[in-house]
Amino acid sequence: MLELGVCYYPEQCSRDLWVEDAQRMVELGIKWVRIAEFSWSEVEKTPNVFNWQWLDEVIDILGEAGLDVVMSTPTAAPPKWLVDFNPDILPVDENGVTRKFGARRHYCFSSEKYLEFSKSIALKYAKRYGQNKYVKAWQIDNEYGDHDTILSYSENAERAFRIWLKKRYHTLDALNEAWGTSFWSMNYNQFDEVELPNNLVEEPSPTHLLDFYRFSSDQVCVYNQAQIDILRENAPGRKITHNFMGHHSAFDHYKLAENLDFASWDSYPMGALIHSNLSDEEKNKRLRTGLPDQPAFNHDLYRHVGKGNVWVMEQQPGPVNWAEYNQSPADGMIRLWSWLAYAHGVDVVCYFRWRQVKFAQEQFHAAILLPNGQPDQVFYEIQQIVEERKLLPKDQSRRQAKIGLVYDYQSRWCNEALPQGQDYSSAIITSDWYSALSKLGVDVDVISPDAELDGYEIIFLPDMMLDNDKFVKRVQNADVKLFLGTRVGSKTENMHIPDQLPPGSFGQLIDLKVIRVESLPPYAKQIVVFNEKEYEASGWRESVKTSEKILATYKGDYRNGGAALVGNEKIRYSSVKLEGNLLNDVIKDTLSWANIDYTKLHEDIRVTNRGDLTFTFNFGNEAVALDILNEHEILFGSNEIEPIGVMVRRNIS
Amino acid sequence: MLELGVCYYPEQCSRDLWVEDAQRMVELGIKWVRIAEFSWSEVEKTPNVFNWQWLDEVIDILGEAGLDVVMSTPTAAPPKWLVDFNPDILPVDENGVTRKFGARRHYCFSSEKYLEFSKSIALKYAKRYGQNKYVKAWQIDNEYGDHDTILSYSENAERAFRIWLKKRYHTLDALNEAWGTSFWSMNYNQFDEVELPNNLVEEPSPTHLLDFYRFSSDQVCVYNQAQIDILRENAPGRKITHNFMGHHSAFDHYKLAENLDFASWDSYPMGALIHSNLSDEEKNKRLRTGLPDQPAFNHDLYRHVGKGNVWVMEQQPGPVNWAEYNQSPADGMIRLWSWLAYAHGVDVVCYFRWRQVKFAQEQFHAAILLPNGQPDQVFYEIQQIVEERKLLPKDQSRRQAKIGLVYDYQSRWCNEALPQGQDYSSAIITSDWYSALSKLGVDVDVISPDAELDGYEIIFLPDMMLDNDKFVKRVQNADVKLFLGTRVGSKTENMHIPDQLPPGSFGQLIDLKVIRVESLPPYAKQIVVFNEKEYEASGWRESVKTSEKILATYKGDYRNGGAALVGNEKIRYSSVKLEGNLLNDVIKDTLSWANIDYTKLHEDIRVTNRGDLTFTFNFGNEAVALDILNEHEILFGSNEIEPIGVMVRRNIS
Amino acid sequence: MLELGVCYYPEQCSRDLWVEDAQRMVELGIKWVRIAEFSWSEVEKTPNVFNWQWLDEVIDILGEAGLDVVMSTPTAAPPKWLVDFNPDILPVDENGVTRKFGARRHYCFSSEKYLEFSKSIALKYAKRYGQNKYVKAWQIDNEYGDHDTILSYSENAERAFRIWLKKRYHTLDALNEAWGTSFWSMNYNQFDEVELPNNLVEEPSPTHLLDFYRFSSDQVCVYNQAQIDILRENAPGRKITHNFMGHHSAFDHYKLAENLDFASWDSYPMGALIHSNLSDEEKNKRLRTGLPDQPAFNHDLYRHVGKGNVWVMEQQPGPVNWAEYNQSPADGMIRLWSWLAYAHGVDVVCYFRWRQVKFAQEQFHAAILLPNGQPDQVFYEIQQIVEERKLLPKDQSRRQAKIGLVYDYQSRWCNEALPQGQDYSSAIITSDWYSALSKLGVDVDVISPDAELDGYEIIFLPDMMLDNDKFVKRVQNADVKLFLGTRVGSKTENMHIPDQLPPGSFGQLIDLKVIRVESLPPYAKQIVVFNEKEYEASGWRESVKTSEKILATYKGDYRNGGAALVGNEKIRYSSVKLEGNLLNDVIKDTLSWANIDYTKLHEDIRVTNRGDLTFTFNFGNEAVALDILNEHEILFGSNEIEPIGVMVRRNIS
Repeated sequence: MLELGVCYYPEQCSRDLWVEDAQRMVELGIKWVRIAEFSWSEVEKTPNVFNWQWLDEVIDILGEAGLDVVMSTPTAAPPKWLVDFNPDILPVDENGVTRKFGARRHYCFSSEKYLEFSKSIALKYAKRYGQNKYVKAWQIDNEYGDHDTILSYSENAERAFRIWLKKRYHTLDALNEAWGTSFWSMNYNQFDEVELPNNLVEEPSPTHLLDFYRFSSDQVCVYNQAQIDILRENAPGRKITHNFMGHHSAFDHYKLAENLDFASWDSYPMGALIHSNLSDEEKNKRLRTGLPDQPAFNHDLYRHVGKGNVWVMEQQPGPVNWAEYNQSPADGMIRLWSWLAYAHGVDVVCYFRWRQVKFAQEQFHAAILLPNGQPDQVFYEIQQIVEERKLLPKDQSRRQAKIGLVYDYQSRWCNEALPQGQDYSSAIITSDWYSALSKLGVDVDVISPDAELDGYEIIFLPDMMLDNDKFVKRVQNADVKLFLGTRVGSKTENMHIPDQLPPGSFGQLIDLKVIRVESLPPYAKQIVVFNEKEYEASGWRESVKTSEKILATYKGDYRNGGAALVGNEKIRYSSVKLEGNLLNDVIKDTLSWANIDYTKLHEDIRVTNRGDLTFTFNFGNEAVALDILNEHEILFGSNEIEPIGVMVRRNIS
Repeated sequence: MLELGVCYYPEQCSRDLWVEDAQRMVELGIKWVRIAEFSWSEVEKTPNVFNWQWLDEVIDILGEAGLDVVMSTPTAAPPKWLVDFNPDILPVDENGVTRKFGARRHYCFSSEKYLEFSKSIALKYAKRYGQNKYVKAWQIDNEYGDHDTILSYSENAERAFRIWLKKRYHTLDALNEAWGTSFWSMNYNQFDEVELPNNLVEEPSPTHLLDFYRFSSDQVCVYNQAQIDILRENAPGRKITHNFMGHHSAFDHYKLAENLDFASWDSYPMGALIHSNLSDEEKNKRLRTGLPDQPAFNHDLYRHVGKGNVWVMEQQPGPVNWAEYNQSPADGMIRLWSWLAYAHGVDVVCYFRWRQVKFAQEQFHAAILLPNGQPDQVFYEIQQIVEERKLLPKDQSRRQAKIGLVYDYQSRWCNEALPQGQDYSSAIITSDWYSALSKLGVDVDVISPDAELDGYEIIFLPDMMLDNDKFVKRVQNADVKLFLGTRVGSKTENMHIPDQLPPGSFGQLIDLKVIRVESLPPYAKQIVVFNEKEYEASGWRESVKTSEKILATYKGDYRNGGAALVGNEKIRYSSVKLEGNLLNDVIKDTLSWANIDYTKLHEDIRVTNRGDLTFTFNFGNEAVALDILNEHEILFGSNEIEPIGVMVRRNIS
Repeated sequence: MLELGVCYYPEQCSRDLWVEDAQRMVELGIKWVRIAEFSWSEVEKTPNVFNWQWLDEVIDILGEAGLDVVMSTPTAAPPKWLVDFNPDILPVDENGVTRKFGARRHYCFSSEKYLEFSKSIALKYAKRYGQNKYVKAWQIDNEYGDHDTILSYSENAERAFRIWLKKRYHTLDALNEAWGTSFWSMNYNQFDEVELPNNLVEEPSPTHLLDFYRFSSDQVCVYNQAQIDILRENAPGRKITHNFMGHHSAFDHYKLAENLDFASWDSYPMGALIHSNLSDEEKNKRLRTGLPDQPAFNHDLYRHVGKGNVWVMEQQPGPVNWAEYNQSPADGMIRLWSWLAYAHGVDVVCYFRWRQVKFAQEQFHAAILLPNGQPDQVFYEIQQIVEERKLLPKDQSRRQAKIGLVYDYQSRWCNEALPQGQDYSSAIITSDWYSALSKLGVDVDVISPDAELDGYEIIFLPDMMLDNDKFVKRVQNADVKLFLGTRVGSKTENMHIPDQLPPGSFGQLIDLKVIRVESLPPYAKQIVVFNEKEYEASGWRESVKTSEKILATYKGDYRNGGAALVGNEKIRYSSVKLEGNLLNDVIKDTLSWANIDYTKLHEDIRVTNRGDLTFTFNFGNEAVALDILNEHEILFGSNEIEPIGVMVRRNIS
C-alpha cells in the first residue's frame, strides 16, 4: 500500500503547535515523519552542551500520536561555532574561493576533521535515538551534491587526492601513462607534485579530470559509509537511507547506496522543467504538469539504486522557491505524482513540508499548511489519495521489465571531462531515450552496467562512453539484444582511445570501427535516411567502417551514403546522435526487432505497471478516452481519463 | 526662471583658456559653474602639501566674470598616495577581490580611516572656500553608488556590520529570530560570528541580505552627513547638495537627503535607453530621443528627495562614452530635455561639460565645446533656450499633483533579497506604472511612504513589498484612495511572511488574503478578463481569498475565474503583475474611479504643468497637431508641435 | 615547389614505430618534420639530468630516412619540477588568479627567472642540435599568445611594467600628461605607484591600458629575441621561425619577427569558422569548407610578417578538438587549403600531426594516421598533392599586388582599450574589407604602416586608429591613392584626440574634420545613399565638416544629407562603418577610381596568382563553370571547376 509521510520542522515553529500538528497529521492519513536533518545547532548550540529535551519531546509527541519517525543525522549543516573553530572544513570552489557559512552544505568531503565531527555528532544522535521505539528509519545527511558541493578544491582535497592517486596507480609511471603526460611535457616525478585540476591555463588532461571526479565520488562514499557504520551499530533494526536528488550525477549513487537499506529521492518536477533544455514553447505546454518522464525516470533509477526499495523523501507540494521561476503545479498534480511514484515502485511518499515557514531562505516554499496553519491545496489532494488507496490491493510489487537502460556514472564523468562538442550531454541523451520508450507505453528498468542481465529482452546503452569488456562478456553469455548510442565504448578505463578504435570491446559483438567523429552545432542538420524516410539529426556524427548490415545512411554533400545505423542479430550501433522523430522511429523499429509489444500513446498519457495493476496518467488539460483491448477491472478513475487524471485497472488474464 | 549651469574642469585644460572660457560662458547665458569634484590630487599632490593657487585663481576668474560657483568636496577620488598609505580604504567586491586605484570611487564607506581623511579634506576645502563670495553652493562627493560601490565586502564593512547589528537587535535572540536561523542550523551565539553575505554555498537568509543592504545604505548616510556638518559650520548660507544618479536604489535617498538643501541629479537619457529592458525594436524607435518618461520620473522623484528643490547637475550634452552603445541625441533634444526638467520643477540645469576632454576615460563624452574649442550642437540649443526663457513668466512653481506614486527604497532591497522570479523587478514595475500614468497626461508626484497624504486623490503603490502599518493608519485617516500592486505588504520589517498573510496590514482596508504566489516565465501568458476584454499578463500571479468585489478574473486551465483585481470603495488590489494594455486599461479605469480627468496622448507627446504653464513635448520625428479645448495663450511653440518640439502655453481660466 | 611537412611526436608513441613512421613519411612525399616543441620534461625529467638519447635517435632515424628536421626549443611547456621550485614564473590572469601547471604556456613573459631558464634550455638544445646535419630549421617556443597568455597580471609584470614606463616616459610629468591623470585625480608621484590595469572599480585611463598592451607585446619580443640570439650563435645557417596563430593581435608580430628568417603560422579554418561572428545560417553554409578568405588573409599577413617567407607550420588535417564544435572538413579540403597556401606565397605546408594521439587533451584531434596507424582521409589528399605538384613549374614566386591593406597592431590595442561601442571590432572590419576585395578577384598585400608604398596603386586603411604623421608624409610623396575607414587617425600616440580633430595628420591630405561620433547598436540601421542607391549601415557613424566632394550621404531624421563618404583625387574617407552591400559597392567603385580591374566572382570561387600561375578555388559543393577570357594553359583541374576543386592555369601573354 502507498504509505504517506511528511517532513516536519518543530524547531521552526512554536512549541504550542506540536501536539496539534501530530494529531492533524494522523487524521490526514500520514504515517511517517522525517525530522531533524538541520537540527545540529538547535541540539548543540554551543560546543559540547547538548539540548536534547525538545527533540525528545517532539519524538514522543509524534510517536504517541501514532506516527513513525525518520530520524536524520544533522551533518548537512554544521553550526557556526564549529566552522569558526575549524575554518578549513569549508569547501573551496573551482575559482579557489573558500565558501562561507550562512546557508547549508558548507563542508568539504575531504576534511578529515569534519569527518570526525560528523561521526561524533552522528554517534550522539544514534546513541540517543537509535533504539527509540518511535524511530523506525534513519536518513543520513541531506541531498549530497546540492549546490555543487561534491567537487571541492581545498588543500584537504588536494592532499587526499594525492593519496587516492597513490592507491590507484602505485607508481608514477602508471599515472604518467594513464594521464598521457608525455603530451605537453606534463610529466610528474612525485605524487605530491599533482595539483587539483582548476585554474589552469588551458584544460588539463581529461584523465586528470576523470580521476578527480572519481576521487570526489569516492570521498562522498567514504563519508557516508562512516555514518552507516555508526547507525548499524547503534540503531539496530532501523532502516537507513539517504535522500538523493533528481538525476544528479556528480557521484556514484550505486556505490554510495551499496549498504543502504533503501534509496529515497527528492522530487521537484516544476524546477526540473524550468531547468530542462526544452524550448520555451515546450516548457509552456508542460508548465504546470512538468515533464511526464522526469519523475518516472528517477523513480526507476532510484528503485535500482535502492535494490528494489525506494521512497520519495520530499515530494513538491505546490510552488517552490529555488528555481528561476516558480510556477504552481496544476491542482491535482500532487495526487498524480504520488500515484505515479507508487506505480513505479515507490513505497512511501513524503511531502515536503508540513507547514510553510514564515522566514529564511525557503519562505516561498509551499507546504501542506499555509503559514497561518490553514490547509493548502495539497491537503485536500492527500485526503483523496487516502480514500483511493483503500480501493487497491495491498500486495502489489513492481516486476522486472523486458527492457533495461544502462545509466553509468563513470561515463557521465567522461562526458564531462571531454565533451568535444559544447552541448553534448549524455544526461540529455539518456533522458531522451527513456522518454522515447515511455511514450510507447513500455516499462523500463534503469540499471547499472553491473546489473544482472537475465530476463531482459534488450538493453539500451545511450551513453556508456567508458569501454567495459566485462559487460561485453556478460552480454555474450546472455540471451539479450543490445542497442548502442554514439560514443559507446569510445574510451578505455584511463580515458584513452581503445587500441581497436571505438566502440572498443563492443567490437567483439559487431564488425565496426569508428574512424572519424564530429561534434556539430545545432544548426548543422544532417539528413539521415531510415526505412526510406528522411530525418534530421545534429550534434554528433561518426564515420564508421563496417561489414555489417547498414540500416540507415547519411545523405548530403558530406560522405553521402555513410552508415548512420548498423546492426546484426545481436546488436545495433547508431553513429548519429538520435533525437526527435529519428529517435522515436529507430526505437520503435528496435522494439519490434526485439519482439516487444508497444503502443504509441497520446502525448499526454503515460502507462506503467505495478504487479497486476496498470496505472494510466493524463498529464494534459483535456480528457482522453482510452481504448483498452484486454479485459480489465477499473479500481479507480475511468476509461475517459480526466485532465490531470489517474486511472488504475487490474488486467484480468 | 530656468537657470543654466555648466560643469567645468580647469585642471584638465590649459590655464590660458580660463579667462576666455568664463567670458564665453557668460555670453552664452550660463549662471552656475560646478567645479573641483575630482580635484584632490591637483590640490594635495603629495601628503599635506597644498596647492590652492590654481583653484583660487579659477574661482576668481569665474566669479569676476559674473558666474556663481558650485564648489565640490573632492572625496569621490582619493589620490594614489593616500591609497598606498592606507590600502584598506579600498572597496572589496562581492567575489572578495579588493578593487584597485586607477579610476574613481575607490573607497569603502565603512573605512573609518577614509571617513577621517574625507572629513579632513572637506574641512580644508570648506575653510578655504566656505565663505568665498563667488561660491554659492556646495556639492558633496560625486554620484554615490556609481560603479556599484555601495556594497563593499571588506573587513572594515564586516566589523561595522556587526556593530550595526548589535545596535539594531540588541540581543542575539532577536537577530536569530529575525533572520530565522533555526531554518538551516544557522544560529549565531555572538554578533562577531556574523559574516557578510557573499561567497556562500547557497543564498543566505534574505533578512541577512536585507540587513546588509540597510547597513550599507546607512553607511553612506553617515558618510555624507559628516561632510554636511563640516560645510554647515564652515560655509554658512551656502546651499548644499549631492548629485544623485538616475533611478539608483542601492541606498535610501530620502534619508541621505534629509539635511541637504536641494537634490540634484545627473541626467543621461541615451544611456538609460540602452540599459533599459525594452526590445530592440522599441529602443530603435526611441534611439535618439530616449524614453520620454525616464527623465520625467527622475525629476519628480528628486523633487521629492529635495523637498521641492531640485537641479539637474549634469545634463547629457550629446553622445557620451560609457554605455554599450553611445548614440547621438537628435538635434534639439538637449533643449527639449532642459525644458522638460524645468516643467517638472527643476530650477537649474547644468550641462556636463564645457569642453570635451582630449584624454583619459571620457574622451568620447561630448560637451558644449568640441576638443578644439569650437561650439558643438548643444551650444546653439542653449542659445535658443536663453531666448525662449525670456518669453516665460518668472514666478511659476510646480504644484502638488492629484496623484501620488510611492517609491520605497527598503522595498527595493526586499525585492533584491528575495526576488522569487528571476526577472521580477520592482524598478521596472514602478517605471511602467509611472509611464502608464504619464501617457494619460496627468501629473504625478513620486513620494516616500512617509510623505504627507493630504491633497492626493489617489496613491499608487506599485511595489511596496514591505508591510507598513503606520502608512495604512495614515491612509485610513485620509480622504484618499489606494491602488496596490502584487506583493504589496507581503513582508514584515524582518522579511517574514505576515501572520495575517499578505497584504499584511493592508488587510485592514480590504478583506483579502494571498494564499498562493507564482513567479512565471515571460512565455507563460496568463489570460485576464477585465471589463469583458481579454488581456495577457505574465511574471507574477497570486491566488487570493476575498469577500470583496472582483473586478478582473483569470481565465484558463489553472484556477479559472480566480480574482486578478479586487476592490472596495477605498482600495484596489491587483494579484497579477500589470503590464502592457492590461496596465494601461486598469490605470485608466482606476483614474475614473478616483474622479481624475485624463486624456490619452499621442504616443510621442507628453504634457505637464508648472504653475499656470502647461508644457507639451513632442518626442517624435513627425509634427503633431494638438487639440486644446480650453482657452489659452501660447508663450512659445505652436499648436502644430514640431518634431523634437516644445510648446508652452498659459491656460486662461 | 610546394614542399610538405609534418608535426611528429615520437615521445608520444612507441619507439618501435619510429623507423616505420619515417619511411612512411618519405614514401608519402613529406620533406620536413617538426619535432620536440613540448619535449622539455622528456629531455630533462629531473633538474639537470638530461636524457638526449631518444631525441638523438629520432633525429638520426628521420634524417637517415631523408627527412629534414625542424627542431624546436621546448619553452612553451616548462616541467613541473621547474614550476614547483619557481612558482612565481606562473602567469596571473585578469582576476588576479595565478594559473596552475597541467597544460601548457604556464609562464609569465615578465618572469626574469623564466627568461633565464628558457635561455638555458634553449642553449642546451642549440648546442646539442644546432649543427646537426639533419636539423635545417628551428622553431622557437610554440604559438605565443595561445590561451590568452600575453597579458599577465603578476608581480613580475608589475615590476617590469614600471621599468618599461620609466624608459618610455622618463618623467612622471610625461606619464601623467600622456595618461591624462588630471582627469579623475589619478596623478602619480612615482613610477612605483603605478599598478597593472586590472580589478579597478571602473575602467582605467585608456592610455594606461594601451601602454600595458604595448609593454606586454614588448615583453614577448624580448623573450623571443633572447632565443634568436642563442640560436644564431649555436645553429649557424639554420633558418629560425616561430609558429604564429591565425589573426592573433595581442602582440606586435612585425616587431617580433624582425629577426626571424621566415614566419610560419598554424591554420585551423574549421575552428576559425566556429569562432567567427557570422550568423548560424552563414556558418552552416561554410560548415565544412570554412571561410574562403580566412586562411588567405593570414597567408598574406604572415607573408609580410616573414618578409616574403612563410610556411604553414600546422595545417588542420581533419576535425580537431578545441573549438565549441569540431566538424569535419569536406573531403578534399586539406588539398584545397594546401594549394591555397601555396598560391598565396606559402613555401612549405606541414600537417599537424602524423599520428592521432590516444590520450591527453587532444585525443580528438585528427591526423594523417588514425590512432591504429591506418591512413586517414588526409593521407590520400596528400598523395594527390604530390602528384599534382609535378605538373607545376618550380620557380614561381608571389609578386607584389597593386593593392595594399594596412594591418596595424597598435591600432588594434587602441580599439581594445577604448572601443566606445561594445561590438566595434577592428579585427572584423579588416577581415570584411579583405574579403570584399577578394570577392572581386584582386590580389591584396597585407602590410604594416611602415611598409614600402611604392608599386601600390591604392592602400586601404580599414582600422588604423592611431594617427601616423610619418605614414601620411610617405603617402604624400608616393604615387598612391588612399582609402580610409572610420576612426582612422582618431587617436594620437598617447591616445588623445588629435588637436586638429580626427582624422589627425590625414587632414593634411583632405579637408575634413570629424566633429561627432556615434557607436550604434546593430538594430539601429542608418540609410546611406551612394550612387543613387540606398544601403543600410550600422555600428558607427560620424558627422564630418568638409569642403571636399561628398560621395555618399546619410538619409533620415538625423542629420539628413550628412556626408558618409568624402573624397578628392588622392584620398577617400568613409564616416560610416562599411559592411555588407555598401562595403562591396564602395570597394568596387574605389577600385575603378584607382584604375584596378576586377571581376565579381561566384560566391564560392576565389582566384589568386603566384608568379605566372593563376589558381582558382571552388569552396562550394556545386561545380562552377569559369569563363576565362585571356589565353591560358590549364596545368591541372578544369574550366568546369569541381566541388571543393582547384584549377591552376598559366596565362599566355
